[in-house]
Amino acid sequence: MALVQKHIQLPAFARGFHIITDLVTQAVPELKDAEVGLLHVFIQHTSASLTINENADPTVRQDFESFINRTVKENEPYYLHDYEGPDDMPAHLKASLLGSSVSIPVTNGRLALGTWQGIYLGEHRNSGGSRRLVVTLQT
Amino acid sequence: MALVQKHIQLPAFARGFHIITDLVTQAVPELKDAEVGLLHVFIQHTSASLTINENADPTVRQDFESFINRTVKENEPYYLHDYEGPDDMPAHLKASLLGSSVSIPVTNGRLALGTWQGIYLGEHRNSGGSRRLVVTLQT
Amino acid sequence: MALVQKHIQLPAFARGFHIITDLVTQAVPELKDAEVGLLHVFIQHTSASLTINENADPTVRQDFESFINRTVKENEPYYLHDYEGPDDMPAHLKASLLGSSVSIPVTNGRLALGTWQGIYLGEHRNSGGSRRLVVTLQT
Repeated sequence: MALVQKHIQLPAFARGFHIITDLVTQAVPELKDAEVGLLHVFIQHTSASLTINENADPTVRQDFESFINRTVKENEPYYLHDYEGPDDMPAHLKASLLGSSVSIPVTNGRLALGTWQGIYLGEHRNSGGSRRLVVTLQT
Repeated sequence: MALVQKHIQLPAFARGFHIITDLVTQAVPELKDAEVGLLHVFIQHTSASLTINENADPTVRQDFESFINRTVKENEPYYLHDYEGPDDMPAHLKASLLGSSVSIPVTNGRLALGTWQGIYLGEHRNSGGSRRLVVTLQT
Repeated sequence: MALVQKHIQLPAFARGFHIITDLVTQAVPELKDAEVGLLHVFIQHTSASLTINENADPTVRQDFESFINRTVKENEPYYLHDYEGPDDMPAHLKASLLGSSVSIPVTNGRLALGTWQGIYLGEHRNSGGSRRLVVTLQT
């Protein structure tokens, strides 16, 4: 078995959900030589998240943003951590509800995703800027 | 170290939460020879989920279904992605809140689950049909 | 590649969120010799959780507890699983929303966490007692 690790930087994305499957797989060209393996993708931030969901219809990503904003509201009177702006504490909560990493099997040189699955970046800040990922391939 | 991977197909389950620990471990008989390891279980769908929770009292699974249906409601007027039925967009959201994979340590030939832990399949569609899993054992 | 696994027992923590990064890394001194790797941390309980979030301002942890208590309420009339106390069924739900494990890349002998990231224990019972973790390092 072998272990390959890459630290990559994403372009800045607007608040919301974005498919980053290709940006991730481009970082590990070694993927195509792996008969079987696991790909681990980790985001080094506490106000953005990674999850796996529908890769086709963009309205799914819009509904994700609508749902998460209603479930984790801004300006809740009970928030104590409010000095980094109204989008900050909700961003922390969203990051933990959705998760900081995804782990995906690799089969025959490709991510063994289902037909409709892609990797989502959840950008939960209004101006999150460029986010750093650590991509680790085990083969 | 070695890496064993199996693609399996579950029987169709009704909407709700179901314990699939035995169905998963039966797919990797190599597990019993592993002194230490990690088992990764991945579901290749965006409207069903995998999580770990109580394996004994079935009312826990019923309460999971009640809770998740109240937290992620059907027919929200703001959903844009509604043409696959009222259970579809909620199923996508539930899948990301609960997760698409579980990763469990292996010790002395067995999953190192706590006494009360089992692997749950969350079937979030009314008629999800048979679901595909990819089970990867690292030892 | 090598695989090191430790079973550890945490001290009892009060209900709420607690940073346990140092307790985890102390269990695997082999970490400092790993050029690249992955660290998997698993909690063997269904009423406590592991997640990654802000390691600095303690008000973030307080807001996590406030948010999760409002999102997963005690004494919901629809709960069927209620004989272990009002904090029990909510604890199971919180555990699955936040997760039973975290997986973190290792780079140059250290966890490749972002500057502000730490490992949270979510203790969701009023008196959860000492919790058991399984820490698995792959290098």
